[in-house]
Amino acid sequence: MAILVESLAEQQRPVTHMRAEILAQPAALRATIDALLPRTAELAELARRTRQVLFFARGTSDNAAVYGTYLIQTAAGRLASLGSPSVATTYHAKVDLSGTLVVGLSQSGRTQEIIETLDWAKDCGAHVVSITNSAGSPIADLADVALVTEAGVERAVPATKTFTCQLVALAVLTIGLGADLNVAELNRLPEAIDELLALATAPDYGVDSIVAELAGVDGLVVSARGLVYSAALELALKIKEACYLHAMGISYADLQHGPIAVVDSATPAIVIAADSGPTVDAAVGLARRVTQAGASAYAIGGGPALASASSRALSGPKLPEWLAPIGLIVPGQLLTEALSRRLGIDPDNPRGLSKVTQTA
Amino acid sequence: MAILVESLAEQQRPVTHMRAEILAQPAALRATIDALLPRTAELAELARRTRQVLFFARGTSDNAAVYGTYLIQTAAGRLASLGSPSVATTYHAKVDLSGTLVVGLSQSGRTQEIIETLDWAKDCGAHVVSITNSAGSPIADLADVALVTEAGVERAVPATKTFTCQLVALAVLTIGLGADLNVAELNRLPEAIDELLALATAPDYGVDSIVAELAGVDGLVVSARGLVYSAALELALKIKEACYLHAMGISYADLQHGPIAVVDSATPAIVIAADSGPTVDAAVGLARRVTQAGASAYAIGGGPALASASSRALSGPKLPEWLAPIGLIVPGQLLTEALSRRLGIDPDNPRGLSKVTQTA
Repeated sequence: MAILVESLAEQQRPVTHMRAEILAQPAALRATIDALLPRTAELAELARRTRQVLFFARGTSDNAAVYGTYLIQTAAGRLASLGSPSVATTYHAKVDLSGTLVVGLSQSGRTQEIIETLDWAKDCGAHVVSITNSAGSPIADLADVALVTEAGVERAVPATKTFTCQLVALAVLTIGLGADLNVAELNRLPEAIDELLALATAPDYGVDSIVAELAGVDGLVVSARGLVYSAALELALKIKEACYLHAMGISYADLQHGPIAVVDSATPAIVIAADSGPTVDAAVGLARRVTQAGASAYAIGGGPALASASSRALSGPKLPEWLAPIGLIVPGQLLTEALSRRLGIDPDNPRGLSKVTQTA
Repeated sequence: MAILVESLAEQQRPVTHMRAEILAQPAALRATIDALLPRTAELAELARRTRQVLFFARGTSDNAAVYGTYLIQTAAGRLASLGSPSVATTYHAKVDLSGTLVVGLSQSGRTQEIIETLDWAKDCGAHVVSITNSAGSPIADLADVALVTEAGVERAVPATKTFTCQLVALAVLTIGLGADLNVAELNRLPEAIDELLALATAPDYGVDSIVAELAGVDGLVVSARGLVYSAALELALKIKEACYLHAMGISYADLQHGPIAVVDSATPAIVIAADSGPTVDAAVGLARRVTQAGASAYAIGGGPALASASSRALSGPKLPEWLAPIGLIVPGQLLTEALSRRLGIDPDNPRGLSKVTQTA
């Protein structure tokens, strides 16, 4: 792994835990890939006993699960969807989950609601996989197969490296479920993120210009589609958590179906897309519609076509679409950290949040 | 059906299509119940050939589907979740949908994306039910069982009576799937909505005070949980569509897991709950947390406990929790229509929308 050489301007910036953790992602992803790829045989055994996948998670982990639903359906041919924890914890419903692989995600592995939901799922007949960053946590202990990511300790409250490591775990899960995905591409991921970080922390990358413009808005839209939708949901959540802005994470399709009315000259949109794949054209169309409404469109990824349709653009990672979300969130993480500081907030400790979240 | 006697002040208000359609809901619901309740035997036949339910929809119809997922899981014991149309229309994935009852919802029955998705679902081995407001539409024609609501023509672009009639269709679907729900309670629904409208259109109900306060905000949160979550998502969508405000529809649990930081003195929250059921306590807790943050909490429903924990309160319908969402959206519809006019918008024709929505 090449050591990141930061410019003098970079070195003089106040270094937050959040920024350090964003920069630590290549190493965390490498360690997670090395730890989890050998586990595909265990997952294949569970795959033989199940037909479909159902995810339970909250917050950032739920956004990761969205990536899992798209990747499993498009690459492994199995139905995969999101479950509602309250069906278990509030209503104590009896649901037939035979033949269902339930996947619970929790960074800490200690979110009580997800522990209860996974116990319920087992009672309902499901097989259970857990994805956590904490070996020995209750959620790791109760699973048939526990995938423990190697993100390391995360001190900033907004999750960054734990999110991208969760996506790696979901990619490994999908391979275990029989998807014909190129493992060599996954193995090249840490290097691609390292190259992207070198580019994205250089002064001419463009984050600062967008931060300056976003510092004056009350709200914004963050949009993507398909496999990349998870990155839009996660960036919107980061901006809400660490910048206190109304950030609406929404698919291109849902946006154009209704809430597009919210986009006006005071409401910019961040449009995220992989450099290739079947959603690029729709991303370009959305960026054009936004700029025609008099609003700013900021591209993350999407190649030259999306960049030229947008007001400003941040280039994305050199990754195939199925891995692109893991890179596309990175410029958004840097943007969030910088915008938070610009707004006078401590991105490591935003109000209202703690690291292990318990929900009523 | 009692005829609504409006006060003089009411009669002098400018009458929009949207308002007329809100007031037409008791009759539309009565006609829909009468048309669909006799269809449960056909649905029971499909239930015997399937194990679980997967919904496809966009916008308001997607919010209705959320109600379907909770009601089917809690009352019929079957897994029910939301599907992503792009898996079909963008990725053309081959997904095993044998044993799956796919339910497509579209008011017009003509949304091209949902037509394509339902055709794909049949190719993937699913049985298909459609819920539309338009007999003879493509989505009605291609289904194994077509549930056609009797909402009548809807001229305002923001859906109101078509939404509540979709919820009735989903209640009938759930009964068809074998749920032990009280049909007499469903039959009393139109009368309960009629009583609520009489109350909610009286000058002292409280909509106008909330509208006056919301007219000065840039964004707000709309929160609920479980069965009522669909009403929060739908009210947030209405406010985005017809008032151009950043309205975040979110569950109590997800809100407290992260984006609670967005709630400050300039960002009120509308908290929606049934008068009874297991989510009332969490609603009260959320309202307290919001007011302690210096923000206004506006209750819709939730009984005396939620009202007393909130800054202002609109009483909800006298309905059991499983039917409450159909009534709880009604004060929200009236609030949206009044706020839209107050902001100088024509609620019947907000910008950016048309009645049959095609998404890229």
